[in-house]
Formats: sequence, C-alpha cells, structure tokens
Amino acid sequence: MQVPFSQSTPHSRRRVLKSGAVAVLSAAPSLLATAGLPPALAPGSVILFQGDSITDAGRDKLQSPPNLATALGRGYAMLAAAQLLEEHPRLQLKIFNRGISGNKVPDLEARWQADCLDLKPAVVSVLIGVNDLWHKLNGKYDGTPEAYRDGFAALLQSTRAALPEVTLVVGEPFVLRCGAVNDSWFPEFETRRALAREVAKEAKALWVPFQEKFDEAVAAGTEPGYWAADGVHPSPAGHALMARAWRSVVGV
Amino acid sequence: MQVPFSQSTPHSRRRVLKSGAVAVLSAAPSLLATAGLPPALAPGSVILFQGDSITDAGRDKLQSPPNLATALGRGYAMLAAAQLLEEHPRLQLKIFNRGISGNKVPDLEARWQADCLDLKPAVVSVLIGVNDLWHKLNGKYDGTPEAYRDGFAALLQSTRAALPEVTLVVGEPFVLRCGAVNDSWFPEFETRRALAREVAKEAKALWVPFQEKFDEAVAAGTEPGYWAADGVHPSPAGHALMARAWRSVVGV
Repeated sequence: MQVPFSQSTPHSRRRVLKSGAVAVLSAAPSLLATAGLPPALAPGSVILFQGDSITDAGRDKLQSPPNLATALGRGYAMLAAAQLLEEHPRLQLKIFNRGISGNKVPDLEARWQADCLDLKPAVVSVLIGVNDLWHKLNGKYDGTPEAYRDGFAALLQSTRAALPEVTLVVGEPFVLRCGAVNDSWFPEFETRRALAREVAKEAKALWVPFQEKFDEAVAAGTEPGYWAADGVHPSPAGHALMARAWRSVVGV
Repeated sequence: MQVPFSQSTPHSRRRVLKSGAVAVLSAAPSLLATAGLPPALAPGSVILFQGDSITDAGRDKLQSPPNLATALGRGYAMLAAAQLLEEHPRLQLKIFNRGISGNKVPDLEARWQADCLDLKPAVVSVLIGVNDLWHKLNGKYDGTPEAYRDGFAALLQSTRAALPEVTLVVGEPFVLRCGAVNDSWFPEFETRRALAREVAKEAKALWVPFQEKFDEAVAAGTEPGYWAADGVHPSPAGHALMARAWRSVVGV
C-alpha cells in the first residue's frame, strides 16, 4: 500500500499487513480509552457515516452511490471521506453518508437495516444525541436520558451481532454555548454526553471526543459561534475540526 | 497566533510576524519556480477562489457571505477553506468562492470588477482554461491559445494594478486521460497549460501544479477515472488532492 504522492500523509502511522490491507491505528492512543482492537481494512471496504443533520450536512438523499460529492454532504463526513479516498486510492474504499437531519436514536433504529446493516460496512461511525435533547426542550419529544442510552446501546449491539468484524465509532455529542444553546440544555446535555461515552465503551467502539476538541478551541480564546453559529450546526471550520478529530482517532 | 489544538498541523511552517499576521510560506519550495514574495495575511484578510466548474463545484450562487458551507461548494476550494478556517481561527479570514461552471477567460474578465476587485482580496486564486479548449472542441468557441494567454495575462495584470499587495495564485489547468478527454485535446491542451505557466510566472503568481500531481497519482498505478470520472471534474479524492497541492504551495 503506497500513497501516490511524494509527501507523506499526516496520518501515516500505518501498519501494512501481508494481505495488503491497512491496519487502522490511532495517531493519538490517549484518546482510545474506549477503543476496541484496531481492525484491518480490506480493499473495497465500506465506511458508513450515520447520524443527524451534523452528519447529513446538506447531502443529496436521492443519490445512493458511494464516494459521490453530492451524496457525502458538506460536513465532517465529506471532509474525512475526501481525505481518506485521496490517501488510499488502492483500497477502493466505498464511503457512504446516511445521516438525516432531525434524527434521534429511534429514527436510526427504524432505518438501521436498510441504512446500515444492508451496506455491510467495515466501519460504522455514529453521531447521535443532540436532537434527542433539543426536541425534548422544544416539547416535540419525551425520551429520557435512559431511553437514549438504552436505545443507542441496542443499536450498537444489533450492529455488532449482524457484523461481528465491524469497527464501531461513536462521536461525542457536543454543543457550543451560543445560538440556540442556552442554560436550559444543562445539566441534561452533560448527562447524555456521559451516557454516550458509556455506551461507546460497552460496545468497544472508538470514541471521537468532539466536545473535548471544541472545548479546547473555545478555551484557547476563540468564539463559540466561530465553530457553530447556532451552537449545534458546525461552520466549515467546525466541520474541519471534527474531521481532524475523527481521523486522528480512527486513523485509517 | 496559536492553533487551538494540542496536535500541530501538517502545514505548520509558519512565521509569526510582530503584527500577529502569519507569513505565507511554502511547504514545498521546489514548486515555487514562479512564485512571488511570501506575503503576510493580516486579520480579516479575504481569500478568493475563482474559476470554472472545478472551482464552483456546486456552490449556491445565491449565497454571497464568506465562509458559508453552501457558498463554498463541494470542491477543493471548500476543502482548503475549511482547513484554513479551522487552523487560523484568530485570523478571521473571509473566504469566498466565485467560480462559475462553464467559465472561460473572457467570462472572468466580464465579471472581474464585481467578483474579484470589489472584494479586495489579499489572495486571489484562479484556475481557468479547460473550457477555453473544451468549448472550442465542441464548436462553441473559437479562442486561440494566444487569446487565452493574452486574456489571462491581462486579467492578472489588472488585478495587480488594482490591488498592488495581492498574492496571485494560478492553478495549473489539468485533465485526466479518460471520460470526455480524448486525443483531440492534444497537443493543444499541453500548449495552453504551458501558456498558463508562462502567464503565472510573468504575473509573479504562485503556481499550483495540479496536472503534475494528478500525473504522479496516475503514474503510481491508479486509474485516471478515480480522480475525475469524466477527465475534467474531480471526484472527492481528486478535489482532496487539489486542496493538498494548493495548501502546500500557498502554505497559509
């Protein structure tokens, strides 16, 4: 496996296996408190991004083939996908984005067979949770934190059962303290965030610390709204931060 | 100027100036045969991407503010912009994409005042040329290579005259040998590519060797269509290759 450029990539801690597959290694082992074993990606492997509007990011839902710009949206999934496809042309990865705006855990459950299991992914990355609280604050939903935890855990469990070799990746639900995000979100958002981490750990999923990275950026003196004007939906800068965090953990 | 992340960026050969501005340094000096002096980017600087469909890449042309995902498209301009905005939050860069599908040099000339000079950019990146030949091959245009050279040179000259401190960036026109790109494109495409380089050199513009990078990728054994199915419009992988090349030359 060679990258066809003279410059090496920033994520080049790869281990080349006899099969020619590339081991998924973390560039930041300290982040992997909840990680499972590093898997190998065989040529033709499917990588699936799942979640809500943050993952969706304006993708064209009428387009179903992998690796299409319009089908990948304009967010972290597309940014990470474009980089992965560039750096690993011989792997012939098939990358799908199946995030849908407004989704909560029960919405993922309802479409999981078609929009996850049937795609036979080698890597499933899920970012879900902000609507599970936001819609509750808006009076449109009444799911408890425990329902979020149990539903999310069941989703990952069913994925592991159907696809024993799958690498699960869980993105940390996050908000920025601005825009639509006011005090009414807390402390319940923190509770749900901790539950997501617990779910990831139990499922032996890789954990992408989005909230931690955004908190670091704000602590360094930047405006929360620079990363997500409404506190929920990232700007291009915010999506780039997420893509970097995702890649440093998943490390393909 | 600090990047608010613990990990350093892959493009961190920066020089911090007293003003807090960041010098534009190349990570690959060998590419800079046609480069002018490295400029400094002051906070609030405008970066403008100009060109045809490759730059446009599906942007929403009804959106005019800088740094908007929908307004930046799904191509190399958006990929580079997202990374720049992430890595330099304190610079408060304003990044515009004003590429328009189908454009040739005369189309840029016709809208240059509104779509370039009025934005007062610190950096103007132009990728133009493929339609100047493609439309000729289709019988829709009759511009000669010399007209391309002279029009392109005049465009950059007028930009320098209006904005003496501007950093000009010229992207190498490129094609992949597949899809719509057949033998009828050659040798005229090579002639025009050489003229673009000449124009860039005379204008003291930074030169981004897109064709060279795609040629390297293909020489390494990858399929041309992996990078651009129709030979002209890059895939996400192709756009990521372009964004990497752009950033390694412009080196913000």
